[in-house]
Amino acid sequence: MEKWPITLTSTKKVKPDADRLGFGKYFTDHMLLMDYSAGQGWHDPRIVPYGPISLDPSAMVFHYGQEVFEGMKAYRTPQGELVLFRPDMNLRRLNQSCARIGIPQVDPEEVLEGISRLLLLEEEWMPEGEGNSMYIRPFIIATESGLGVRAAQEYRLIVILSPVGAYYPEGIHPVRIYVEDRYVRAVRGGTGEAKTSGNYAAGIKAQEDVKSLGFSQVLWLDGIEKRYIEEVGSMNVFFKIDGEVVTPELNGSILAGVTRDSVIRLLREWGVPVKERRISVTELFEAHQDGRLEEAFGTGTAAVISPIGSMKWDDHDIEIAGGETGELSAKLYDTLTGIQRGEREDSFGWRYSVR
Amino acid sequence: MEKWPITLTSTKKVKPDADRLGFGKYFTDHMLLMDYSAGQGWHDPRIVPYGPISLDPSAMVFHYGQEVFEGMKAYRTPQGELVLFRPDMNLRRLNQSCARIGIPQVDPEEVLEGISRLLLLEEEWMPEGEGNSMYIRPFIIATESGLGVRAAQEYRLIVILSPVGAYYPEGIHPVRIYVEDRYVRAVRGGTGEAKTSGNYAAGIKAQEDVKSLGFSQVLWLDGIEKRYIEEVGSMNVFFKIDGEVVTPELNGSILAGVTRDSVIRLLREWGVPVKERRISVTELFEAHQDGRLEEAFGTGTAAVISPIGSMKWDDHDIEIAGGETGELSAKLYDTLTGIQRGEREDSFGWRYSVR
Repeated sequence: MEKWPITLTSTKKVKPDADRLGFGKYFTDHMLLMDYSAGQGWHDPRIVPYGPISLDPSAMVFHYGQEVFEGMKAYRTPQGELVLFRPDMNLRRLNQSCARIGIPQVDPEEVLEGISRLLLLEEEWMPEGEGNSMYIRPFIIATESGLGVRAAQEYRLIVILSPVGAYYPEGIHPVRIYVEDRYVRAVRGGTGEAKTSGNYAAGIKAQEDVKSLGFSQVLWLDGIEKRYIEEVGSMNVFFKIDGEVVTPELNGSILAGVTRDSVIRLLREWGVPVKERRISVTELFEAHQDGRLEEAFGTGTAAVISPIGSMKWDDHDIEIAGGETGELSAKLYDTLTGIQRGEREDSFGWRYSVR
Repeated sequence: MEKWPITLTSTKKVKPDADRLGFGKYFTDHMLLMDYSAGQGWHDPRIVPYGPISLDPSAMVFHYGQEVFEGMKAYRTPQGELVLFRPDMNLRRLNQSCARIGIPQVDPEEVLEGISRLLLLEEEWMPEGEGNSMYIRPFIIATESGLGVRAAQEYRLIVILSPVGAYYPEGIHPVRIYVEDRYVRAVRGGTGEAKTSGNYAAGIKAQEDVKSLGFSQVLWLDGIEKRYIEEVGSMNVFFKIDGEVVTPELNGSILAGVTRDSVIRLLREWGVPVKERRISVTELFEAHQDGRLEEAFGTGTAAVISPIGSMKWDDHDIEIAGGETGELSAKLYDTLTGIQRGEREDSFGWRYSVR
């Protein structure tokens, strides 16, 4: 592990109350850094005290948005292990995002080793309490100075850790969704399948607009026909129609979610029919009208499973699963969080033990 | 002008050789800053020594890409005036970009006053020499710390100045363009009409790919049918077909360029027919086959007019205007740069005198 030398902080922060963590508000005492420069490649991997990033105002990330990121969670199991959930998938996707945005690839094993070392160093920050976890945010930014529009020649990888609270402090509960038909998140040939900042910037206006109308997220439609369902907020989306589970296929504009993949595998294991295919908003609302739309839920690292209780599209306002959490949604949530927290058997080998 | 208090630098930089400026490589001694926080609004406008921006690693711009920018040039006229070119259009567009990305609006007059003050302070940086100018880069970044995906509550406006060289040091010359049919820059309902970093990040991979094949830029097609022409590189694009000038209409995914608008107005003034309409790549290549494609050029702040000498699409590789700069392209370039530099009469009132 001598690849990631550690410089310890001289002043540790006061740790937040484990009951009031929220999401992404507190950060630990150290962070991981690694730099890239053309010719030299990725170099100088290190763990240092958490602190500000200082960049020239002309640093390319501020102008041309070369940035990619990932999101993962670490848990402490009842046996006291520190575990990650399928980190290989996140690090593979990080490199796929890099490829799309013109950022040089990292060595996934080296980065995983660094993240493990950082987690062990910050173990006292791992929050106690049901449902709490440590959120891990790796990201890469173009740090080169200069205003020419081209791939930068200098980058920095940064990993920060944030102790986070349970996504549903009072138990899993369904959300209200608005079918977005003005703004578009991504289109085939664009950056939708990469985890890059521009995709999120594109979605903020729509999200703020519907929040003020009492909805918690938007349902994104495809950018071409504005007919086919893509994602919900910043999550993948699933529907249970007539006993079969359907999720939009990975068409180039949809993020290949780790939770999405895990849900598909669990359903197959359970013998629940699941299809990755195009699904139009018309089909969805017709299925509801015919009484065949049984459940709907989003999937993502932060919420794991986010049941959709109601959905509005034009003049149609529908309630799903009686506005409650569906049976399958609940089972998926319990199973996935159980595996993630080390409370259930990990028959897929999804847990990665840091220690 | 006391709205923009100045803190002077204690160590002035050595100024670069006016013959070797390039684009966006050198920056002056001072920069303009203004901060925003919810409740307080935009506050603390100031001019300070040019120096690094220090941000928490969780600053939202690094994760969710809330960023907008502008590009303008200042010139010194033969009469010694410092002038900008249609700054009202840039500042109006800055606010339009803000609206799309969920960033609070600025007061355009206040910002223009600040830019003017900064330019006067940095006047000794205004480079001598034919075609040299001062490039002005205003940009706004989300500075709030935290990983929740939503509109930030804190932002910073920054304006930096870069003395830049002539775009064509050896005279205007045509470039070679590749018609991009895999990657997409933007789509209707997305962020294409906003000047935001994510649009540029989306284009970098395609640009790097074609550069290695000997092309200087890509021609972007629409994201829906991949048939209709949108932009060239990071410029708007014009074609002269059978005596008529055609440019893609502003359909929601195309940036409303200041140079684009100026070209349209000049052509109308000259009695040259000009249409803003959809134009397919098929129509363009057919027009070439029939001998009706007379000229093609990009327009933007950096190059002003960038003639297109050849274009490749699938198996078709065409030469335009004999690979030379067309007559109309040259006339537009001479006229626009003449007005910008104060060497020609400004019948439209486009020049804005800083002093």
